[in-house]
Amino acid sequence: MVTDSFLDHIEQLRFEINERLQSFPLDSEPKYIYDPIKYIMDGRGKRLRPIIVNLVGTVYEASKEDLLNAGLAVELLHNFTLVHDDIMDQDSLRHGKATVHKKWDESTAILAGDGIYAIAQILITKVKTNPLNAIHAFNKATLYVCEGQAYDKEFENNHGIVLDQYLTMIKKKTGWLIGFCAELGGILGNQPDSVINELQSYGLNLGIAFQIQDDILEIFSDSKSMGKSLGSDLIAGKQTILTVLARQNDAVSWKQKWEEIMNNDLLLAIEKFRIYFEKNSILESAKNMAKKYTEAAQNNLQIIPKEKRAQLEQLTEFVWKREK
Amino acid sequence: MVTDSFLDHIEQLRFEINERLQSFPLDSEPKYIYDPIKYIMDGRGKRLRPIIVNLVGTVYEASKEDLLNAGLAVELLHNFTLVHDDIMDQDSLRHGKATVHKKWDESTAILAGDGIYAIAQILITKVKTNPLNAIHAFNKATLYVCEGQAYDKEFENNHGIVLDQYLTMIKKKTGWLIGFCAELGGILGNQPDSVINELQSYGLNLGIAFQIQDDILEIFSDSKSMGKSLGSDLIAGKQTILTVLARQNDAVSWKQKWEEIMNNDLLLAIEKFRIYFEKNSILESAKNMAKKYTEAAQNNLQIIPKEKRAQLEQLTEFVWKREK
Repeated sequence: MVTDSFLDHIEQLRFEINERLQSFPLDSEPKYIYDPIKYIMDGRGKRLRPIIVNLVGTVYEASKEDLLNAGLAVELLHNFTLVHDDIMDQDSLRHGKATVHKKWDESTAILAGDGIYAIAQILITKVKTNPLNAIHAFNKATLYVCEGQAYDKEFENNHGIVLDQYLTMIKKKTGWLIGFCAELGGILGNQPDSVINELQSYGLNLGIAFQIQDDILEIFSDSKSMGKSLGSDLIAGKQTILTVLARQNDAVSWKQKWEEIMNNDLLLAIEKFRIYFEKNSILESAKNMAKKYTEAAQNNLQIIPKEKRAQLEQLTEFVWKREK
Repeated sequence: MVTDSFLDHIEQLRFEINERLQSFPLDSEPKYIYDPIKYIMDGRGKRLRPIIVNLVGTVYEASKEDLLNAGLAVELLHNFTLVHDDIMDQDSLRHGKATVHKKWDESTAILAGDGIYAIAQILITKVKTNPLNAIHAFNKATLYVCEGQAYDKEFENNHGIVLDQYLTMIKKKTGWLIGFCAELGGILGNQPDSVINELQSYGLNLGIAFQIQDDILEIFSDSKSMGKSLGSDLIAGKQTILTVLARQNDAVSWKQKWEEIMNNDLLLAIEKFRIYFEKNSILESAKNMAKKYTEAAQNNLQIIPKEKRAQLEQLTEFVWKREK
């Protein structure tokens, strides 16, 4: 059960991460790159990734300094991918703020993303415990995130994509980085490979559940709490858990419905999609799938001594039940 | 003096680097990212950066395996910045081939650049001698290259930029990475800081001379040997050694000439700029400046035992005298 004291703890961690990001020492020149980087660091993300690094690392009594540098590194790595993805997907809103390429332009956003990634690399190099393992896993995770985004672009408007392909995509796009965050907690906590591998699996399963839940919220949440326009992925022809399950459920009916909705007033599209997904139990199947991966993640947590895993159990439940 | 046997040696190194790049083990899926990455790896660059790593590292008997991994890492880092810069500058030709964003599109080029950088990071992590020093310097160089590109964009069409600002820009955009290549040879050759710092200065001076020479060739070379359209930087309003020296020489006359040329037939622009730069001794001043930095680089080479520095002395002369 998610307790108030757990939520307070998460809130406190997020506050600390935001403080560090906002006071991060950066040169003021050239403004062309540092103004947008400061803008990104001042964003309002969930900070899920550094929170995972912190919670896992704390279980194994990792050094606070290492957890801080590593946490900022993964958050900046994540932000680098968001800035570039937002250009590729032409998204205009992120966490309730204009995206970098909208506020400035595409060139600025490309370069600011590159710069943030270089800073993330400098931060991960600062960890003192098993630095080469940490750096190697960091780079592998980055390449996988790029591969995931490549699948995401490749699958756009492809009405033949099936569940397995969708899972391959989200494992790389979202799962691996969250898996890496849990792994990193173990690396910095000086754990053996057997433990680190299980932690990695924990994060991977959690990340898959997180992405499925994200796909659901993109349609069934409200715009204000998500800080971005709803349904934009679906309408852009992205593969989401709802579209692949709808296709699996009844490809002919789904294709008809898709064309009918997309060829009419797009302002009504989300509402019509919602009705279809609910009526055909697609929403229910998607929720069950998120639950399945959440349970797998909870199982992976058994690797952690019982008296030390309460926070991560709550985090896992929280990710699945979140509404934004 | 640049000898034939030196040129043969450089050619051989370039051949080996190209072989390694072309046979680099890459997944085939997702094609969205790996097709353009293979295309980039199949490019026809000068491979100056890995050649420097190799020549400096060989002086200090660094491991061949380290030099190979490090050389590929710096070449891929360089290519990552080129792919992104070409988007920002809307360049359509690079080393005689269509740029990635022209052959595919901007999203593909952004992601392929990110992927190549992640691969470069994975490669630099593989070095066995002083890996943390190598990685740290690698990341610092990347951030400086980003800062240099930021100045480059910030200074576009700014007719108040002076020589000092230009030098700040090219030190970061070009100089630091070449400086890092020489430094890396010393790091992998297990040299003390005093030597590494001097090697870094060598590369920095060489890099500045290289960029000044590049600016000159952009106007005074021919399109075929450069593998890109001539004068595009100048016409795009970029700061080059020729424009800042022309401004320093006679700001009023230069501004008049600039407006006169740019407001008329652009097909004749390069020829008219050439005449102006030659008549006003701007070309001569620029060449002298490239020579000055080349001499400084030659001086830095004194740190290397006399009997071991012939190749680098020839390389330094070659960079300054090259015609493409």
